Amino acid sequence: MLMNTFGHVFRVTTWGESHGKAVGCVIDGCPAGLRIDEKFIQAEMDRRKPGGEFSSKRKEQDKVEILSGVLEGITIGTPISMLIWNTDVDSGPYEALKTIPRPGHADWTYLAKFGIRDWRGGGRASARETAARVAAGAVAKLILRKYNVRVFGYAREIAGIRFNVGDPEKAFEIAERSPIRCPDPQKESEAEELIKKAMAEGDSVGGVVELIARNVPAGLGEPVFGKISAYFAYALMGIPSVKGFEIGRGFEVSKLKGSENNDPIVLKDGKIRFATNNSGGILGGITNGEDIVMRIAVKPTPSISKKQKSVDYEKMEEVEISVKGRHDPCIVPRIVPVAEAMVSMVLVDCMLLQGLIPRSFVGRS
Amino acid sequence: MLMNTFGHVFRVTTWGESHGKAVGCVIDGCPAGLRIDEKFIQAEMDRRKPGGEFSSKRKEQDKVEILSGVLEGITIGTPISMLIWNTDVDSGPYEALKTIPRPGHADWTYLAKFGIRDWRGGGRASARETAARVAAGAVAKLILRKYNVRVFGYAREIAGIRFNVGDPEKAFEIAERSPIRCPDPQKESEAEELIKKAMAEGDSVGGVVELIARNVPAGLGEPVFGKISAYFAYALMGIPSVKGFEIGRGFEVSKLKGSENNDPIVLKDGKIRFATNNSGGILGGITNGEDIVMRIAVKPTPSISKKQKSVDYEKMEEVEISVKGRHDPCIVPRIVPVAEAMVSMVLVDCMLLQGLIPRSFVGRS
Amino acid sequence: MLMNTFGHVFRVTTWGESHGKAVGCVIDGCPAGLRIDEKFIQAEMDRRKPGGEFSSKRKEQDKVEILSGVLEGITIGTPISMLIWNTDVDSGPYEALKTIPRPGHADWTYLAKFGIRDWRGGGRASARETAARVAAGAVAKLILRKYNVRVFGYAREIAGIRFNVGDPEKAFEIAERSPIRCPDPQKESEAEELIKKAMAEGDSVGGVVELIARNVPAGLGEPVFGKISAYFAYALMGIPSVKGFEIGRGFEVSKLKGSENNDPIVLKDGKIRFATNNSGGILGGITNGEDIVMRIAVKPTPSISKKQKSVDYEKMEEVEISVKGRHDPCIVPRIVPVAEAMVSMVLVDCMLLQGLIPRSFVGRS
Amino acid sequence: MLMNTFGHVFRVTTWGESHGKAVGCVIDGCPAGLRIDEKFIQAEMDRRKPGGEFSSKRKEQDKVEILSGVLEGITIGTPISMLIWNTDVDSGPYEALKTIPRPGHADWTYLAKFGIRDWRGGGRASARETAARVAAGAVAKLILRKYNVRVFGYAREIAGIRFNVGDPEKAFEIAERSPIRCPDPQKESEAEELIKKAMAEGDSVGGVVELIARNVPAGLGEPVFGKISAYFAYALMGIPSVKGFEIGRGFEVSKLKGSENNDPIVLKDGKIRFATNNSGGILGGITNGEDIVMRIAVKPTPSISKKQKSVDYEKMEEVEISVKGRHDPCIVPRIVPVAEAMVSMVLVDCMLLQGLIPRSFVGRS
Repeated sequence: MLMNTFGHVFRVTTWGESHGKAVGCVIDGCPAGLRIDEKFIQAEMDRRKPGGEFSSKRKEQDKVEILSGVLEGITIGTPISMLIWNTDVDSGPYEALKTIPRPGHADWTYLAKFGIRDWRGGGRASARETAARVAAGAVAKLILRKYNVRVFGYAREIAGIRFNVGDPEKAFEIAERSPIRCPDPQKESEAEELIKKAMAEGDSVGGVVELIARNVPAGLGEPVFGKISAYFAYALMGIPSVKGFEIGRGFEVSKLKGSENNDPIVLKDGKIRFATNNSGGILGGITNGEDIVMRIAVKPTPSISKKQKSVDYEKMEEVEISVKGRHDPCIVPRIVPVAEAMVSMVLVDCMLLQGLIPRSFVGRS
Repeated sequence: MLMNTFGHVFRVTTWGESHGKAVGCVIDGCPAGLRIDEKFIQAEMDRRKPGGEFSSKRKEQDKVEILSGVLEGITIGTPISMLIWNTDVDSGPYEALKTIPRPGHADWTYLAKFGIRDWRGGGRASARETAARVAAGAVAKLILRKYNVRVFGYAREIAGIRFNVGDPEKAFEIAERSPIRCPDPQKESEAEELIKKAMAEGDSVGGVVELIARNVPAGLGEPVFGKISAYFAYALMGIPSVKGFEIGRGFEVSKLKGSENNDPIVLKDGKIRFATNNSGGILGGITNGEDIVMRIAVKPTPSISKKQKSVDYEKMEEVEISVKGRHDPCIVPRIVPVAEAMVSMVLVDCMLLQGLIPRSFVGRS
Repeated sequence: MLMNTFGHVFRVTTWGESHGKAVGCVIDGCPAGLRIDEKFIQAEMDRRKPGGEFSSKRKEQDKVEILSGVLEGITIGTPISMLIWNTDVDSGPYEALKTIPRPGHADWTYLAKFGIRDWRGGGRASARETAARVAAGAVAKLILRKYNVRVFGYAREIAGIRFNVGDPEKAFEIAERSPIRCPDPQKESEAEELIKKAMAEGDSVGGVVELIARNVPAGLGEPVFGKISAYFAYALMGIPSVKGFEIGRGFEVSKLKGSENNDPIVLKDGKIRFATNNSGGILGGITNGEDIVMRIAVKPTPSISKKQKSVDYEKMEEVEISVKGRHDPCIVPRIVPVAEAMVSMVLVDCMLLQGLIPRSFVGRS
Repeated sequence: MLMNTFGHVFRVTTWGESHGKAVGCVIDGCPAGLRIDEKFIQAEMDRRKPGGEFSSKRKEQDKVEILSGVLEGITIGTPISMLIWNTDVDSGPYEALKTIPRPGHADWTYLAKFGIRDWRGGGRASARETAARVAAGAVAKLILRKYNVRVFGYAREIAGIRFNVGDPEKAFEIAERSPIRCPDPQKESEAEELIKKAMAEGDSVGGVVELIARNVPAGLGEPVFGKISAYFAYALMGIPSVKGFEIGRGFEVSKLKGSENNDPIVLKDGKIRFATNNSGGILGGITNGEDIVMRIAVKPTPSISKKQKSVDYEKMEEVEISVKGRHDPCIVPRIVPVAEAMVSMVLVDCMLLQGLIPRSFVGRS
């Protein structure tokens, strides 16, 4: 639960730089006896892959190679090492910025921390790293599938255009067919136009991603510091470009009264349920069985070709730069599968901690 | 970094129920050779203490008793155990709700998790627990003081009234003199009126707290999952009633363009600095030396005397309840010192991880 | 799993100095719904308590006060804070050694680490600290009892006298009636004489403690680094004065052939079992269902009144000292309950990690 | 610090099965600015590599491929992923034992834990996994070299023959030229003969490895549970085939008196030192600056061709087996570099925790 490792029992360590040989992850603590559906993993990878009208032109197949922990398609309880070769690396455009940190990027802060930095394509701080998260998240989703727990993500807002959504599952399905993961067909073209306009101006736009987890058992999360809401926040704020997190009504609660915000407790089909879901499925940091509803704020991609001010730290002089390379004018659509991956890892980890997932599925349905 | 323990190297474990004998904490990993200023600790406790026009009428002196780890006023590197006796406990009003979960509270979720719950005053999920955090946070602040790192918190919004602030230090000073920690004298009475109105109606209001950390060295935070922004989110989302977190421009970034949001890098006094601070002092999850700026959304106190729907889970029938007991009509002012405590712990922990704070101050200035 | 915290899911943090106000512990991760048998806890404390012919004359009742986590005698899933006041402190004899480290003690190394040390009675490095471990271990034993897992400890050797033992349970029962926890009535008086002789000479003796865990389910322990044998070693080497650890045949294996050391696998009552138990119940770091058998080497108490050489580090000159105060001429008997406590904590933690113990016992037999 | 991850700040995760595609490790927390001497890493790998008269005939080049974390030969503070392809895999001999656990191996316990096992060559429990540890340990050694901290390992005993050693550095040098890592030329051939005899009989022998760490700064290790002695025990007991651990005089202390075992404290060259080193360089779990001296008991290799009893767990019937495949008749020589690797990782981790190693070497000598 430190640096490049995520999770307590289901623990994922990722590694790799954007322009290095490969990126990858090691999953430790994955239950044995899980059938690894490689097609599903690849499908998840494809959801995040660059290419397409609104994203980076870097061409990566993002083919996942499983090196350990799986025997004849079944997990055996040992670490699952997954590797994704970097095949379309072009560090050329970064040569000119070897000593000039790009605004909005981690160039300067990595240098401040480590005294050295990988200038090639953002190095470790590049969103390329998230490919490994999606691979690990796909394994987490395979586990969740056994419990019918589902995670849905989609764009909730792009470039200031707020999308309307109904049922999250439906919204997810619509969004998956949209090139910008927009769940609102009415407003899709408006948002697309704004992205195109930004691209034409050498600029970029931001947005909001909404995440829903459905059929989550009540009782997940830990007291006090280990609230599952805090854990989700940790997971999602750890994604590059995310600047805000909220759960349920989120920042709107500041304007509500207690009598408006409290969800009445009622009986439905003989079970204790909540009449509304302002809490977003979490009370006191522990799940209550209702849909978990979260949103994250995604900043406009910092890589823009528009002129920006920076400083050459070798010469210690101010300069004007234009960031070249292949970038996403709006990272929101590609963050969706990454965010789903993080949410899925949190859920699996909490279900293991709660004793709801066994260390082995062998001999169980 | 699990359940009731917070931190990696500077690690704080808290314990205690609202109506139990005491609450307390154990700080492990505190550097040796730190002079423990007990008056300062008590002053911090007093900032959080109930009492006053706008908060709970429970009377607690919140006197901290230090049981270990300190010799003749100086830390010796061993765990610091701090204890705060609960002296004004009245569980009477909770008797009627022994089998009825209060809406907006953790009653039902703790039961779902543990199969048993402390019905007396919210038990472990009560904000009473945060007294121990403030005690630990005060020790963290004593360490930060050696490095001139300062943490300021104040209400940024209450009941929908947004406060204007100038310099954070000035805002902090003004807010400290305000009964509702309002940094904006112009709008203070308006907000107070809304709290009083809610009280009169047996209702409650929410708000937003802003936190600033100043003079934070660049280079704090860890790659990828361990971003300091994620760590702050984890720390602050772990406070009861917090439903949202944002850093820098936060959710506003969704409406900005890259060219507006990127902070230009410039030379100031021969040093690399940022012309603006939209990032809130953090890039790629690592501090850049500018002010760290964060906000959290605080929900209206769920304990309200207004009638609410719930279910008696013994009888499995719907009921109407009114929550009695001594509660805060608006918890925002009292969350401020708790949030500052959490921010301070994160900073000390990250500075230790970065090797900027030694394991012992003995023989150093 | 760092500094003063032990365990992954069942986690125990201890605190307190020998001559401070109190010692204590916080248990986090204890399942809810456990009946806390306070008499049993106290009985365990009494097993470790000083007093008696062969141990320190310090008079401590070692009464455990439970401050949180327990409601009406039942655990509620929140941290259990336990406190033991120090009531018979006499720092007088240590005044003369304020600047002179005692040979065989941690005085010098704590100073080297922290630049400051608690000179009163060994401070944190005193075996007084182990009182808190026994309290926590008693709770672990209450959990193990539900699964019929039993832990037996006794002296296996004292002052060079090796004791003969038959069945471990029987050996345990005999030893519990012996003032030196000797399981071999034939050799008990011989060992006692050697202890008395050492006392008379102002000297001390060492020995070996044997620990057995019975009815441990197969499958505990984690691959590679997390072997349960490694975990036991960590737990037991963390007890003051322990200089060696072995499992099964231990150091004897260096003289055996593979064909002698391998335990044949056989069918007993239709179950897979092992014909012998040279492995001590652990293969590849994972339990095999047979008795776990371990031994630890305990050094002679370093506190002796015999003249010894040391250095006054203020004056930087060599001196001769005689250690006064109240000490055990042989710590072996009192280490037994401490070692059992550590073994019990490891077992509970591993059973939780393996999903064999639920987070709550409520609604279960 | 769980399962397949080792360490607190310098953290190593290993993965891979003996007959899988590859084994490897990810090092997280390695300071930036370290020059990676790939030749040295390979030389360490070669020290562990199979081949030679007294070890397994499996032919592996054990060539380490570095996939991340290193730029132009220098670490950049991000995870270092290292991969070693398995190139000489022959699972044939294991086919016959697919449902028959080998005595002395983890076959049965892994099955008990996970309900499934990799039957090919021991899978994850194979000593093949230790190749990845040696790669990680080599990086740790490169760090220690900057502080002149040196780690020496050699056989101290083989097949019951105890070797005489003088100065550890000298012993190490002699042993490195011996095919069985024997530091005692007088007894080398005697031990070799016993190994050959065991081979001829289809049997195996065990031994003892001694480890020395020199120039270790005083003050490493953490109070109470986190003693460095406990940490070393955890590290070394986690190596396959290790059944015992001791430090300093180890199990001999049980026969000594306090006056014999305590190391007198003296002044040498104006510094506080210890006249003898019975403690093995550790007091109260914290280093005292003297040589750290440890020994581990290594069992005879369980893979023997001699007939042994086992059970076919599909048919549930007793069988007699002979273990084929390529095995070491005595694993002691090849454990030496693995044990050194583990000791080196512990030292680097503790020096980081103590603030003695920075997070970056850039700009430092």
